[in-house]
Amino acid sequence: MSARILVVDDLEANRRLLEALLTADYYEVMMASRGEEAVQLAKRERPDLILLDVMMPGGIDGYEACRRLKAMPETRHIPVVILTTLDDRDNRVRGLQAGAEEFLTKPIDDVQLMARVKSLLTLKVVIDELRAREANGRRLGVITNDGRPDAVDQHRVFAGNVLVVDDNPTQIKRIQSALGVEHRVSILGDEAGAGPPDLAVVSVHAKSFDGFRVIARMRSGEATRHLPILAIVDPDDRKRAIRALELGAHDIILRPIDEEEIIARARTLMRRKRYMDALRQRLDQSLELAITDQLTGLYNRRFLFTQLEPLVQRAQCGGDAVSIMAIDIDYFKRCNDTFGHDVGDAVLREFAARLASNTRPSDYACRQGGEEFIVVMPRTTGDIACLAAERLRRSIASSEFIIPGLAQALEVTISIGVASTDGADETTESLLKRADEALYEAKRTGRNRVIGRTGRDAA
Amino acid sequence: MSARILVVDDLEANRRLLEALLTADYYEVMMASRGEEAVQLAKRERPDLILLDVMMPGGIDGYEACRRLKAMPETRHIPVVILTTLDDRDNRVRGLQAGAEEFLTKPIDDVQLMARVKSLLTLKVVIDELRAREANGRRLGVITNDGRPDAVDQHRVFAGNVLVVDDNPTQIKRIQSALGVEHRVSILGDEAGAGPPDLAVVSVHAKSFDGFRVIARMRSGEATRHLPILAIVDPDDRKRAIRALELGAHDIILRPIDEEEIIARARTLMRRKRYMDALRQRLDQSLELAITDQLTGLYNRRFLFTQLEPLVQRAQCGGDAVSIMAIDIDYFKRCNDTFGHDVGDAVLREFAARLASNTRPSDYACRQGGEEFIVVMPRTTGDIACLAAERLRRSIASSEFIIPGLAQALEVTISIGVASTDGADETTESLLKRADEALYEAKRTGRNRVIGRTGRDAA
Ligand SMILES: [Mg+2]
Ligand SMILES: [Mg+2]
Repeated sequence: MSARILVVDDLEANRRLLEALLTADYYEVMMASRGEEAVQLAKRERPDLILLDVMMPGGIDGYEACRRLKAMPETRHIPVVILTTLDDRDNRVRGLQAGAEEFLTKPIDDVQLMARVKSLLTLKVVIDELRAREANGRRLGVITNDGRPDAVDQHRVFAGNVLVVDDNPTQIKRIQSALGVEHRVSILGDEAGAGPPDLAVVSVHAKSFDGFRVIARMRSGEATRHLPILAIVDPDDRKRAIRALELGAHDIILRPIDEEEIIARARTLMRRKRYMDALRQRLDQSLELAITDQLTGLYNRRFLFTQLEPLVQRAQCGGDAVSIMAIDIDYFKRCNDTFGHDVGDAVLREFAARLASNTRPSDYACRQGGEEFIVVMPRTTGDIACLAAERLRRSIASSEFIIPGLAQALEVTISIGVASTDGADETTESLLKRADEALYEAKRTGRNRVIGRTGRDAA
Repeated sequence: MSARILVVDDLEANRRLLEALLTADYYEVMMASRGEEAVQLAKRERPDLILLDVMMPGGIDGYEACRRLKAMPETRHIPVVILTTLDDRDNRVRGLQAGAEEFLTKPIDDVQLMARVKSLLTLKVVIDELRAREANGRRLGVITNDGRPDAVDQHRVFAGNVLVVDDNPTQIKRIQSALGVEHRVSILGDEAGAGPPDLAVVSVHAKSFDGFRVIARMRSGEATRHLPILAIVDPDDRKRAIRALELGAHDIILRPIDEEEIIARARTLMRRKRYMDALRQRLDQSLELAITDQLTGLYNRRFLFTQLEPLVQRAQCGGDAVSIMAIDIDYFKRCNDTFGHDVGDAVLREFAARLASNTRPSDYACRQGGEEFIVVMPRTTGDIACLAAERLRRSIASSEFIIPGLAQALEVTISIGVASTDGADETTESLLKRADEALYEAKRTGRNRVIGRTGRDAA
């Protein structure tokens, strides 16, 4: 898969070398010679990947550029590979701690670099897809950051479950000692009580199992498809490192394992997983907004109809009976006129909260609009529904509403009409109509009461 | 990337051969020996890819199995590669016409098969991600197929724009003659007036340009990132075929181009593009539901607040003034009580339609709830807003509402309160409150009128 890659190096010769290498592989290359320039260019051009030199005199260095890139919402999802001649352990750890996805040493091993680039780009295709949908949600105002911290603050450490798949006791101990400080670490075969993993660390040099097979299984299994995998590879085994990436490992660490390095890599992998999970979750939650009543948090009319329709159809075809309650708050208009809209809204919210806690998990409590509510009760006959309605009516009438900012407590009562599916010619409309008629009768005959129109099943 | 692959062949030896090959590459393999069994297994297990034999005695053949797989919503997104010894052109075209993504001849060229498998799986990762979000939307009832034909009916042919990138006049003519029947075909450099392409056909043997570069550019460019690309390759140039797939071509056709074959391949590619586009669109549209009032199709309260808040903030900081209209339908309750809810709803819908056509594209018309509406007018001073409100009031009062099913026409009038941002201490709440006060005064002083509380900017 082709992509746009930003090459950052202060030396023209280095830039040209990478440009030639990447262009030969049909990547599109853009270049910067200083850290500040790289950050600006990345922000404006949104490349798919950044190759970043460390030493760049006369400005910020690669570590600082990486930190800035990872701090901006516009660029933090772009993978960064730090390329440097500084081949000591401290620099590698520093680069990873700055948030870089990888740290490679010059002179660059072409094959290794390309395998890395491909692996990082594969994941980015999915991230881009999710980001595109999210951008649309933000444009519409459906997705906001209200009250939700941005899940990928690069300084935040996410504690998670780490599953270690290895058979080397010394190595396992080392991993446990390093990652155990921040995470819950369990060993495959001994993970009783551990939750689903947020990261798997898999050795591809184990004697008792095939590490590649483990990676492949995890990557293709339903539950572990999105799990980040860190593969442990021998330093001189370039082939296995590349194979692990091809099979879907997201990152590689060389033996012997350096504790600070594995901590930094685990952080980066978990941060990216949280980022993707948060994207998915925000999309899923915004879809839920479409069926949520904004004032009360109950379901809205849209949801009422999409849920009720198939239930009625199934009841028609000999399935279980469905009952509904149509509920109206008595004298709500008067309350609104006397105390104002704000008190009215507070009454609606308080009623909704009580309604929600008085219905079963299998029921759907919906706000129809105004002070009208509908509860859909699947697999419920009319007599059971009438009992539930009576219980609800009593619970509302028996304890006054305390409204914040209002000196007096309010006595609130409700009227309820109950209807149940009745025979083969029942429709959603006819069911709702009968509940409405029953509600009207409850109102007409004095309010604060339940009237059932529950058909044959209650007779 | 690892994956679960279903191998279908009536001969055990063939199954074992493929199993060994795929397992060595760490794919997970499941197997079936008959067409019906394959269809059932695919439906239940949802593999990531299917390798399908053609000749299977004693049941449906591979073509029919493929047709069935492509006809079921649960399996039609799973790529199918037909593998057969029937190496003639007619069988190849038949396989592709059955909806298969690819047709390979036994004995299988391992490298070619694996390149194909990888390319198909790459795309499937994105499809799976979109499908997961969609499944959530369907569970919530936010995404339905109501009134929208399923976009991937395999027998439907999608006419689209085909862009040919080639410099061989004979070959171009051939492509034009084949694809021109169903599609609009244009040639790169001569595509004046053609819309954005739905498919690119790119030769990688052109003399005047580098076809690989073209594919890479298309794949990494913002506008063409999702464009299906069909690469034209010489039959004996396996390396180029694999390279094209690696760079992001979705399909390969060998020279000399067979007309029926390119027609079938173009259909499959376009069908898949429509499928993915439809997934994206359904997600984006369902997000819009969250800000849409269900009865009228106008924006809802949620949207009102998310849009108004930043506009007021900008106005506070010296930005352009914002005005709002608070609108109430006069005597709506009476109409509702006299003619019933259905007529009331029809009045609300008719009013909403007139409101929408009476506001500028830059305005936001929202239903607050009940018979109350708010129009947000960015970059609009109070005097302009009052003029617009007066025009709207007159247009509603001057022509009666014709309600389907109601014999008499209804005279509808509205009252409007107008308010504009006024100074640095303005908030969304204070602005809405002033519009409400103005509306209340319009009601109190006789209805069917506009009252402005537009502050200093209108003074
Ligand atoms: Mg340097
Ligand atoms: Mg056979």
